[in-house]
Amino acid sequence: MNATFRWPVRIYYEDTDTGGVVYYANYLKFFERARTEWLRSAGISQQLMIEQENVMFVVKSTAIDYHAPAKLDDAVEISLTAEKLGRASVNFSQAAWRIGDAGSELLCFGQIRIGCIDAVSLRPTAIPAIVLQKIKGLITKGPHRISDQ
Amino acid sequence: MNATFRWPVRIYYEDTDTGGVVYYANYLKFFERARTEWLRSAGISQQLMIEQENVMFVVKSTAIDYHAPAKLDDAVEISLTAEKLGRASVNFSQAAWRIGDAGSELLCFGQIRIGCIDAVSLRPTAIPAIVLQKIKGLITKGPHRISDQ
Amino acid sequence: MNATFRWPVRIYYEDTDTGGVVYYANYLKFFERARTEWLRSAGISQQLMIEQENVMFVVKSTAIDYHAPAKLDDAVEISLTAEKLGRASVNFSQAAWRIGDAGSELLCFGQIRIGCIDAVSLRPTAIPAIVLQKIKGLITKGPHRISDQ
Amino acid sequence: MNATFRWPVRIYYEDTDTGGVVYYANYLKFFERARTEWLRSAGISQQLMIEQENVMFVVKSTAIDYHAPAKLDDAVEISLTAEKLGRASVNFSQAAWRIGDAGSELLCFGQIRIGCIDAVSLRPTAIPAIVLQKIKGLITKGPHRISDQ
Repeated sequence: MNATFRWPVRIYYEDTDTGGVVYYANYLKFFERARTEWLRSAGISQQLMIEQENVMFVVKSTAIDYHAPAKLDDAVEISLTAEKLGRASVNFSQAAWRIGDAGSELLCFGQIRIGCIDAVSLRPTAIPAIVLQKIKGLITKGPHRISDQ
Repeated sequence: MNATFRWPVRIYYEDTDTGGVVYYANYLKFFERARTEWLRSAGISQQLMIEQENVMFVVKSTAIDYHAPAKLDDAVEISLTAEKLGRASVNFSQAAWRIGDAGSELLCFGQIRIGCIDAVSLRPTAIPAIVLQKIKGLITKGPHRISDQ
Repeated sequence: MNATFRWPVRIYYEDTDTGGVVYYANYLKFFERARTEWLRSAGISQQLMIEQENVMFVVKSTAIDYHAPAKLDDAVEISLTAEKLGRASVNFSQAAWRIGDAGSELLCFGQIRIGCIDAVSLRPTAIPAIVLQKIKGLITKGPHRISDQ
Repeated sequence: MNATFRWPVRIYYEDTDTGGVVYYANYLKFFERARTEWLRSAGISQQLMIEQENVMFVVKSTAIDYHAPAKLDDAVEISLTAEKLGRASVNFSQAAWRIGDAGSELLCFGQIRIGCIDAVSLRPTAIPAIVLQKIKGLITKGPHRISDQ
């Protein structure tokens, strides 16, 4: 099994702008959907993290390069690789690809760092042990073992 | 002073879609901004309503007719008239107008009903007395007195 | 086969607001996704409608009643029934349902009317014959035959 | 006059998520509003750029660090400094600040690079001379002269 997780996204009117392409901020929505589904694939619900553990993940930094624009009706795939797991943060490489008959075309690529914060104080806090364990399980499923930080 | 409240909105890329016009759901964002500013004009903060009164306003129903589309860079004005104030709800007439050199053009028009709910149980609850009083003050400032329900 | 079309939607952070529920305008995005997929199921691409036929669908009116709020991580299903097909418009009944272990719960219900317009002049125009034919095919697939208007 | 441009943004329900804070992608909307208003301050309309010059600006890269979250009702200010003007691109430093009684608090900071593309082919193209001249005028108004690249 590969450590790269993939999640399909379809481009709807809501995602596009008057330039005829997907609005640049919306790729961050697609990236977040993929991270949510990656967590869900390990049995982690972010709603339950808030309700039961009183913590949540927030984005600490993003660095995105835009290569080609997606358009209405495009079939897009979001890829995700966890690059580094810390006590209170996870670093990801993510990309968006247009899926076509002739293969995939890179739309944008980026580095995303998320951090765990207390849901009330909004201050950084350690990822709960039960969540951390599930994330480690996800990461080490792939052929490219990622050492814990 | 007129009971109709007005709030300006500028159309940005984020508001448009690949059809070259404002995406239809976004008029509901503009309408909500105007309701928020109308409440703020009476000293009502919805963040404080949640934090201090443990209640919030949610939309119960909308009925919108779309007449003409707004485009990128358009200067738009949102109008708001409170039509009926209940113990746990407020009914509004709202419209969006394009403001141009030759006058205003109606873009869309609608009826919105908001209700007050408990922020935890999400069940309907009475509008807090202090908030209700401020809303009454807003409504009766205008020439068209609106009777309380 | 039933004339009611269904499309699944998952609730992500992007869909929610600080009230802890899905922001009311976003149900219109979900409804639009379902209409787009319903058209796609008949082989109609809205991107190609713009590029090849120089027409597009826009929303003419909406009337929505909100019954219960969706929350982060909810599995939601959007239903769609075409109620009336005109020369230049289609009327739909649409609803959002939360899918749970104990069955479905109605979140909101509404009537949506879309119209066909020229993509340049933005004026109403007849639905192209090839598109109209495909929509008729979709509608008459179901057990509840809908007469053309 | 200072080369740093500032634009106010108010936080509405639409901007927040169930974590009680502004959704991370929405700062990119605020940054884009500020760039649009900066261009408008020099008499540049992006709608007219598309219609008359057949070109448009798109984002080529972003790098954002998130420091503190904005919440509902916050008064936020977006700052913008053009760092580098090329033949077909402009680099900006942008930040979001919460404006409070006790001063400003940095919410997020980033580098944004926009490029000019042909509105039909979507390929990179030179910024039209008339637009380039107006942007140069904007940049050189400030005390920190920026050399053209």
